[in-house]
Parts: sequence; C-alpha cells; structure tokens
Amino acid sequence: MAAQQRSGGTVAHRLIEEHLLEGRMVPGEEIGLRVDQTLTQDATGTLVVQELEALGLDRVRTEVSVQYVDHNLLQADERNAEDHVFLRSGCRRYGIWYSKPGNGVSHPTHMQRFGVPGRSLAGSDSHTCAAGSLGMLAIGVGGLEVALAMAGRPLYLRMPEVWGIRLTGALPDWVSAKDVILELLRRHGVKGGVGRILEYHGPGLARLTAMDRHVIANMGAELGATTSVFPADDAVRSFLRTEGREDHFTEITAEPGVRYDLEEELDLSALQPLIAKPTSPGNVVPVREAAGEPIGQAVIGSSANPGLRDFAVAAAMVRGRQTAPGVSFDVNPTSREILQDLTRAGGTFDLLAAGARLHQAGCLGCIGMGQAPAAGRNSLRTFPRNFPGRSGTEDDAVWLCSPETATASALTGTITDPRDWAADHDVPYPHLDLPDRATVNTAVLEPPPPPEEAAGVRLERGPNISALPDFDPLPDTLDVPVLLKAGDHVSTDEISPAGARALPYRSNIPKLAEFTLTRLDPGYPRRAAELRESGGHVIVAGENWGQGSSREHAAITLRHLGLRAVVALTYARIHWQNLANFGVLALEFTDPDDYTRVRPGDRLRLDGLHKALTPGAPPTVTVHNTGRDETYRLRHRLSDRQRETVLAGGTIPALARRSRLRPDPPDRP
Amino acid sequence: MAAQQRSGGTVAHRLIEEHLLEGRMVPGEEIGLRVDQTLTQDATGTLVVQELEALGLDRVRTEVSVQYVDHNLLQADERNAEDHVFLRSGCRRYGIWYSKPGNGVSHPTHMQRFGVPGRSLAGSDSHTCAAGSLGMLAIGVGGLEVALAMAGRPLYLRMPEVWGIRLTGALPDWVSAKDVILELLRRHGVKGGVGRILEYHGPGLARLTAMDRHVIANMGAELGATTSVFPADDAVRSFLRTEGREDHFTEITAEPGVRYDLEEELDLSALQPLIAKPTSPGNVVPVREAAGEPIGQAVIGSSANPGLRDFAVAAAMVRGRQTAPGVSFDVNPTSREILQDLTRAGGTFDLLAAGARLHQAGCLGCIGMGQAPAAGRNSLRTFPRNFPGRSGTEDDAVWLCSPETATASALTGTITDPRDWAADHDVPYPHLDLPDRATVNTAVLEPPPPPEEAAGVRLERGPNISALPDFDPLPDTLDVPVLLKAGDHVSTDEISPAGARALPYRSNIPKLAEFTLTRLDPGYPRRAAELRESGGHVIVAGENWGQGSSREHAAITLRHLGLRAVVALTYARIHWQNLANFGVLALEFTDPDDYTRVRPGDRLRLDGLHKALTPGAPPTVTVHNTGRDETYRLRHRLSDRQRETVLAGGTIPALARRSRLRPDPPDRP
Repeated sequence: MAAQQRSGGTVAHRLIEEHLLEGRMVPGEEIGLRVDQTLTQDATGTLVVQELEALGLDRVRTEVSVQYVDHNLLQADERNAEDHVFLRSGCRRYGIWYSKPGNGVSHPTHMQRFGVPGRSLAGSDSHTCAAGSLGMLAIGVGGLEVALAMAGRPLYLRMPEVWGIRLTGALPDWVSAKDVILELLRRHGVKGGVGRILEYHGPGLARLTAMDRHVIANMGAELGATTSVFPADDAVRSFLRTEGREDHFTEITAEPGVRYDLEEELDLSALQPLIAKPTSPGNVVPVREAAGEPIGQAVIGSSANPGLRDFAVAAAMVRGRQTAPGVSFDVNPTSREILQDLTRAGGTFDLLAAGARLHQAGCLGCIGMGQAPAAGRNSLRTFPRNFPGRSGTEDDAVWLCSPETATASALTGTITDPRDWAADHDVPYPHLDLPDRATVNTAVLEPPPPPEEAAGVRLERGPNISALPDFDPLPDTLDVPVLLKAGDHVSTDEISPAGARALPYRSNIPKLAEFTLTRLDPGYPRRAAELRESGGHVIVAGENWGQGSSREHAAITLRHLGLRAVVALTYARIHWQNLANFGVLALEFTDPDDYTRVRPGDRLRLDGLHKALTPGAPPTVTVHNTGRDETYRLRHRLSDRQRETVLAGGTIPALARRSRLRPDPPDRP
Repeated sequence: MAAQQRSGGTVAHRLIEEHLLEGRMVPGEEIGLRVDQTLTQDATGTLVVQELEALGLDRVRTEVSVQYVDHNLLQADERNAEDHVFLRSGCRRYGIWYSKPGNGVSHPTHMQRFGVPGRSLAGSDSHTCAAGSLGMLAIGVGGLEVALAMAGRPLYLRMPEVWGIRLTGALPDWVSAKDVILELLRRHGVKGGVGRILEYHGPGLARLTAMDRHVIANMGAELGATTSVFPADDAVRSFLRTEGREDHFTEITAEPGVRYDLEEELDLSALQPLIAKPTSPGNVVPVREAAGEPIGQAVIGSSANPGLRDFAVAAAMVRGRQTAPGVSFDVNPTSREILQDLTRAGGTFDLLAAGARLHQAGCLGCIGMGQAPAAGRNSLRTFPRNFPGRSGTEDDAVWLCSPETATASALTGTITDPRDWAADHDVPYPHLDLPDRATVNTAVLEPPPPPEEAAGVRLERGPNISALPDFDPLPDTLDVPVLLKAGDHVSTDEISPAGARALPYRSNIPKLAEFTLTRLDPGYPRRAAELRESGGHVIVAGENWGQGSSREHAAITLRHLGLRAVVALTYARIHWQNLANFGVLALEFTDPDDYTRVRPGDRLRLDGLHKALTPGAPPTVTVHNTGRDETYRLRHRLSDRQRETVLAGGTIPALARRSRLRPDPPDRP
C-alpha cells in the first residue's frame, strides 16, 4: 500500500501517519498531529484548566480527556484540597473525566481504563509515553500544548527517527522488565533517545506482558526519547480482556521486514539484575557490584513499576518473612484497581504481615511528596528517577531497581541481588497466579456531565487558585536591564522549584513566582516585580538554558515577573517552546564572546523586534548595550507560527487575536 | 480489708493505692506513683531520648517502655526519617521497645500488645488515658515526666476526685461508643473532667467491648479529666484472649456498693447519634440538627475510633455502594494488626471498591500531618479534637462523630444521621462477624537488645537532632528586661506552634526555638537570643498563661532563648509544671493592678531569689521596676521539691546535683 510505503511501515510510522495533520514525516521537520486523548495530572492540571478558561473553550473536542489527582496528595494545608475541588469543577465545566485522589497514578490508571491501541495521547506529564505499551502514540508535553489539544488543535513536534530495538530470548528468573530499560540506560545514557521513538519488536516480545511493556515504555523518558511504542499484539489483547475491554483491541504491528532508522539487538536471556546508582538513571551497574551496602529504605510502586505483578512478586518474596529492622519498606500502590486485586489475591496481607508500610495510591515519594529518606542513607526505589534532591532530601542516596531487587534488599537490609538472596534461602522464583479478570472499578471515575449541564457549572476557585495572568503583546522596542546573568545548564528546577514547599502553589502563579530563580538569586523575584511596570527585564544565560523537567510554570512565572527576553548561548528544547508559548522572546548570541561581555545590571536596547518577527523576515536582532556602548548581533529560531505567538504576547493572546479575525472557533480537524 | 476501706474501693482508688509511693489519697494533695509502663510517640519521644541521655540513664527501670512512631510520617524532607533513626538508636541504647512507622498509633497498639490490667502507664501523649479501658491507670504527661518514670522515679500529680459514671441499658442500632463520650461532652463541656478520674460502672458495661471502652476513655482527655478507668472484667478478658494474651488478665472491679466522690447516670438506650460542631469537642448536638450540610471530606480512624469494629462497620455500610462524588473518604488504619484483620475479613477491599482513600497506619490528619480539608468545607472526622486550624487549614470546619455517622455522610455527601440513611436504603444495622483471634504480629515490634549489647549502642544523631541544651542554675538576682507583655489565655500552641512547618524540628531545640511566640511577636526569638548572654529576660502575662497542649517544648524553647522568669496573673497547670521542670521561675502578681502597670521594655530587678526558694521559706519576692521606680509584691506556688528544681536550673541539673551527693543511682522503688 502506498501509504505504508511512504510511512516506512513501522508501528511508529503507522501511528504518526494515521494522525498527521500538517508537515512531512521527515526526521527533524515539524509535524502537526491530531490528538485523540489527553491526560493531565493535578500538579500541571490546575494550570491547564486556567488555560482552557483563558482559551474560552466550551467543551473539549478530544475523544476522551482525563484529569488525574495523583501528585499533591499530602494536604499539609488547605491548598491541595482546594486544587482538587477546582480540578473537579473544571472537569465538570469542560467535559473531562475526573479521577479523584486515591484512584492512583495517571499512567497505569489510564492504561487500564482508557488506553486504546492506535489512538494518540497527549499528556502534561513526562511519563505519558508509558501508554506506548498498548500500541498508542503517547507523548508528554507542556500543559498549554495539552490544553490546545483539548481544544482540538494539532500537537506540534519535530518528526523523530524511529529506533528499532529487537528483543530476543526470554528474561531469566529474578530478572524483570525494569532490568530491560536499565540495560538500555546502561548502554546509551540519559540522552541516548533524544529525537527518537524507541520501537520494540522481535521474538522476545512474546513473553512480555502489556504491563511489562509499560515499565519499559515509561522509562523511555529517561533516555530522552520522544516516546516508545510496542505493537498491539496478543499481549495487548490479553491485557484488554483482563480489563473487560477486549472490544477496544485493534491489532497494530509493523510490516514484516520493515527497516528502522536505527537498529539495536537486546537478548533478554543475557540480562541480570541491574541498579542505577545515585544520582542519575544513567548510572547503571549490575546489582552485584553494589551488593552489601546498607539501606534505610526500599520503596516499590510508581509508574515505572506499576503492575499487579510488581507488587505480587514482592508479596510472594516476603510471605512468612520479616523485613530487616531499621528498613522502611514502603509500598505505594499505583492504582485503586491494582490495590484491590492485590488485596483480593492476599498480597496486601502478606506485605503488611512482613512489616511493609502501605500508603495511599499515588505518586508520593516518586515526585518528592513525602517518603524522604534520612540524609546520606541508601534508599532503593522502583521509581524512574533519582536526580539529586528529588526525594526531598538534599543529601540523598537514591538507587533505582526492580521490585525483586528492592524486596530482596528490604529483607536483608543491604543491597542484594535477588538471585543471591534466593540461593541463600533456597527460594524458587515465585509462580504468580494473577487473575484473568481485574477488579474493574469504573464507578470511582466521574464522567463529565452532558453539555447542557456542563455549561452551567461554575469553576470553584479557592483562595489559592489564581487566574492565568493576562500577557500583553511584545513591544517593538525593549530598553530593559539585565537582571540576572546565569551560567550554563540552569534547569527548570532551578527556575521554578518543585518540592513540598513550592508545589502547593502550582495553581497560584503570583505566589509561585515568589520562588522563581531563588536558588540562584534570592532577590530576583522582588527586583523583577519592581521593574515590571517600567518595561520589565531581560536575562542573559549560557548553554542549555532551561534543561530538565517540562514544567511550563518555569516560563509563566518568569513572564509574570516581567521577563520579556532571554539572550542565551543555547536553549533546552521544551523550555524554549514554553518561552514562546508565553510570549518571551528567546534570542541567541551569534558571537559567543558577546556572552562574556554582558554584565548583570547592564541595560540592553533591542529595536525593530516587530520586523524581526515578521513571517519570512531574517531572524536577526541587533542589541545595544547602552551603558557600555557595545552592539551585539543576536538571532532567533522561531517558526513563522511561533513568531506570531511571541508578537501577540503568547499562545493564548495569539489565539484570541485569530478568533477575533475569524469569530467561529475552528472545528475539530 | 483495711486498705480497701482507706482507698474507697473504686477501681481508681485500688489502682492508685497499688502504685502509691508518696503522699495521701486526699483530693488535691500531691501524690507520687510508681510507673510500670511508659509509652512515647515520635513528636515527643526524640526529646525524651535526649532527656534520658541528659539524665545519664543506662537502662530503663520500668517493666516495659515502648517508643511508637505514629505522628511525623509524611517525610517531606529528611528530618522525619532522621528522627526515626535517632529514636531507634535510643531504644536500642536504653532498653525500649521500638515500634516502627507503619505499625500504627501508640494507643491501640499499646493496648493490643502491651496493656495489662492493674498496671500503671505514663505516656507523653495526652490520649495515653485510653488504656484505662483495660483497667490500667494510664496518664498523659510531659516528656520529662515520662523520662523520669523510665528512670524509676515517681510520677507526681494531684490526687483527683473519682467520678462514677453509671451506665445502664444498651446502645441502640446505629449508635456507638463515640456517641457515649460525645454525650458526656454535651453534658459537661471541655472542662467538666478537670481534677477528676472518670470511672465507668454499672450494668451498661456488659455490652461494651474493650475497644468500645477505649473510644470512651480516650476522649476523656477532651473533658479535661486526669484519666478514665473501666473495670478489668469479662470484656477485658475476652479482648486479651483475642490478642493471644489471656494469661495477662487480672480481674479488677470496684467493691460492691462503693461510693464515688461524684455520681452520674447515663442510659445508653436513650442515646442518639451525636456530632461535635466546629471548633470544639464540646459543641455537641444531635446529628439530625446538622443534617443536610454538604461535606467535602469524611475520615475514619484515629485513637478515638481505632478498633476493627469501627472500620468493619464502615466497610459493611459501603459494600456495593459508592461514596458521593466530590467527597474524599479517608481511611486511616490505626494499627498494622487492625489493617491486617480488616484485610483478612474483606473490609479493606470493600472500602477501596467504594472509593475510599486508604492511608498508612498512623495519626495523620488527627495531628494535622496531612489530610487538610479545603478552606471552609465541612470535614467529618472520627477524631478526638477539632480545635480551629488543628487540621492544617486555617479556616477549617471540622466535625467529630462516630464511624457510622461519618460513613453515612460520605455516602450521601451531606451530614446524615445513619438511622435516616438506613431507613432510606432499608439497611439493617450490620451484624459484624469479628474474628475470635486477631492477627497477632509481634515480629514487627523490635525488642530492646540485652544490656551488654545496649551499652555499646551509639545514638544515631542526624543533622537535625540537637542535644538537650544545658541549663545553668537560677542566680540570686535577676536584672532583666520585660521582652513581651502578653494578654490572657495564651496557649502553648501560640508559644511553640505545631503543624507541618514546625513539627519536623521537634528534635532540634535551637531550630524549633526560632518559632517561639512568633504568632504573637515575630521578632521575639531574635531579640531574646540577643539578650541571652547578658542575663536573659522576663515575660509578663495575664490570666491562664500556657493553656492547652502539654508540649514541654513550650517551656524548653522559652528557656533556651533566655527566659528566666514569668510574672503572670495565673497559669495553666501543665505548663506551670513544665516551667519548673526546665528552671523557669513562675511568679504571680499579688496585686492584679500591678499587671497593668508594667510595660514591655521595662527593666525588672528581682533580689533574694535563693532565699525565697529555700524549702519552707515564705513564697514571696519583691521586684523593682527600675525605670519607673515602682515595686511589686509577687508570690510563687512551688512545692519544696520544685523549689530545689528551679534553683538548680531544672529537673535534670537538680537530679545531677543530687546524684553527685549520692553517687549510686536510686534503685527501683
């Protein structure tokens, strides 16, 4: 078939072609995709609701959109609960499913209840890619991109290369899916997947369940991949049957003999238990290399090991035993359904009897909401990330591993290869008798009301919920001071910190803005606010400005504080996109030496910005450093679409302007 | 028998007489009691370990001492986990049982595993009195009093009156133990039990299980009672049998026809479901009076409704139903054992299926660690207290009720009398088939190592664990400024705040001190610290200084900041005792008008303090307000024992001084 010829015939190509609205499927070129489903979580979702409000949307245009509450569950004060009330009202207003606190982590819950092979999914969470396990095209992006997708607009991205990973053999006893993705991280590091889709194929797939594949697809994010995809095959059909949704199955496989842009082989039989040492998912070594290190905590759960199997294997290992004294063995159920199934199968009882600490279903320690370990004490986690301080403990020592390794180590009190523990105790690898039919519980998910009822719903905005700030258009001339000069590799975590102090303000931009850049310069928010009325300010930065988490709060709070432009050597991709979305002009030095010439406090005058952002115009701007009487030549990399956005002051004002020109909102493409 | 004649023959008198070391059993007189058992929890226990260290204790002299970790379980950063490590090392060093995080709330866990009829128990938690349900003499006091009890010293208190509460009849369907104690709070308010022991007796006891009695004894604290006692009868025997400890049973009942200091009748048959409205446990009304109010949250659990029955009745009510949309139905298991039993009986599954949010075992929202409701939204809780802001939400609306009322309301989404819900849905009162034998799990409790091993244990002090400050003796003359002049009824919550911000510093006096009195005067800690080296300062206060929670942190942090004396109109009892324990001289104006004369910033000179604190000397002190050239006459109310304590700088230096005079530590009395 011609289409398949053109698409290349991989699962990834077939999924992209099926959703392609704009652009050509040439690696590196911008493409626009139709989005069938969206997911949001509470830490990003409150902003998405505010964005839907700012966009003037009446009702989402996707097939299904779901709002999960899984991040901010601690409720140390009223703010988390107010977010939950606000989110629920937003769901009822705009036609979104609401998954309340206690239902669990978005990714496994979405897979169980809403995942459909062949559909596209945009999610405001970097692990949205986990749904690739079902043969979906699932991509994590910033909240505004998800809001636009809800409004029926295309999702834009650069066409990735497709990297075929051929699996052969079968996993040995005591080795599981987590070890597969850890092996890929061992081989390729945390940037190995950038600009790529990882597509798994080959005979080794046959013995990997859909939930095993979820583990592997989820942590594709840690390789920097755009997403990961698996075929929708018998394993997916079987999963959907267990969930009572076999009718949602469609087979999607690659054409026989298809060629990938890049190729790789992975023999599952040759794998051994692996562990990522502190403080990067890329620091992978065999567990035996770290064996014997004392631990203070072991945690199972998170979207990186969410399945019933992952808990049931731990329960089987601890049955009739006790975890080591002084070890906190934390069990984070990933979804209500999985916890119900585990309870029905007796695993919950066994874990409790062995001394485990059973927590509510949710992300919890995985995003630093609680479960922080003591300083310097080793914590083994089945989570996807172990960046320094992400646990909530400044001087932490977090290791990433499989449930088998975490559980064996919880039993011994030291880092332990589960094969060695099994040999010492003469334990065969557990035969798990998992149910053919999951405890399907749809009643706990709240469907949106019908449109006529939804139209009458008022957003319930507690004292901590701000409205999205209004942003004005970019002036033709900026004459503003350099309020901060940053070095290289400043991350969005440094721009807008997460953690238990700041996260409760994720719905409150003015308040959250008070934390902006304070890890670099505690006085920045106050000085920026003072300058806001007199034209704002500019930031000068080195390489890779805005690396790390996709949080759009990093761009919004900067803009809220009056940032009009950044002049950097280079940018991280997602933050660069977010800056454009919120009307901040991202410029680059053409001569790197100019970076060293600018000093904090200098005053920069940028003229003729409107012309430089005219579609098709040369992307160059000349800036005058008025105090030093120096002139630098800058450039930007904005597409014509983005130029319009920045000129208007951001995506939302740009859309508002367009809809004034064309009064009817665009139909679903 | 002569002894029983003297004791009055009530259960309370018999228990006191059995433990009496000093004093006479005359209401109002000071008595000293032998302490058989102690319990500490983590929010008070880290200080207790530091006090044991300061006392130079080698090993506890009680029959059994247990350290629970149930309060600070959120672990937003490393400090909670470091407390847990420190506590465990303290247990191993001093011979204390360690109950790790996840084992549950101290009171039900202690009752299940360690409670023995006839024994005395001192606990650094105000709900220690719950163990009165087993026929124990169980009293909540400050941490240092518990530390001294661990060191084999007497516990001092004023001999209470014994208030006999005669129960008749039997509870109607949908009415349970919580409604009994709410009825007493309705009748007598939150001060009705001050200076009294509540002793329950009469034919109505026969149908109340030991766990029902726990509910009633626990919330005796809310009446202000010294403690509550029940007889050790067949219900207690049956409880101990279920726990596999029938051999620990001793029958303890009042003599027939005994007379109580006060008498009261309560006909259980006449009770109806009751609820305490915001913001006091004393605001009790029938549930029907509040029916129809919308709710945002319902929580079951806490030491005020800890039993398997309390969860099982909720599980039976929700089975096959769904909680109302928009209601967070939080389930806080009170102990690992109860959660295991509930899981085994199917209740955990039923609660999850109905939409409940299942949390780890512990105190959680009951002490404001998480679960804070949205501002102004009604939260129904089976907890003991609903003081304003205690939930973590400044503008909260917390109601206290039974599990039946909380669950019916969670199902309807509005405050609902469970009888009306049952009638509407044609539901009979659940017949609960509770197991004859609980899931006894002793392996999760860590016994102390033998003395020879304990002697070699080092305390594991993380960066957040301070040592207890050294306090110097009281000088003969104080010449110090009035740093703060406070009004009436300043509570220990205002002196040393709790909550998610300050609680993690409960092991770190210098850091915790930075929060001292900041709700009244944000500059107080800094100004006090500046004056510390030059002789310290004095505080002037009105009526009832230091009311509320027993936390000794309120006295220690004041003393750490250099407070040497308070001059007040009157004091709250426990804080007054704590001031003496930490060497702060508590003085009273003899002429109330002098209170109005003193101004903040005045300088007070107090001479001849050593003479005024000599045993037997007249308890008067003359103070000269040097700037105004005024003289006031003050008095103190310290016993001879307390005079010695204050002179030495506090209990710990006083004991150190005494042990220098008498080198061998005193034997167990």
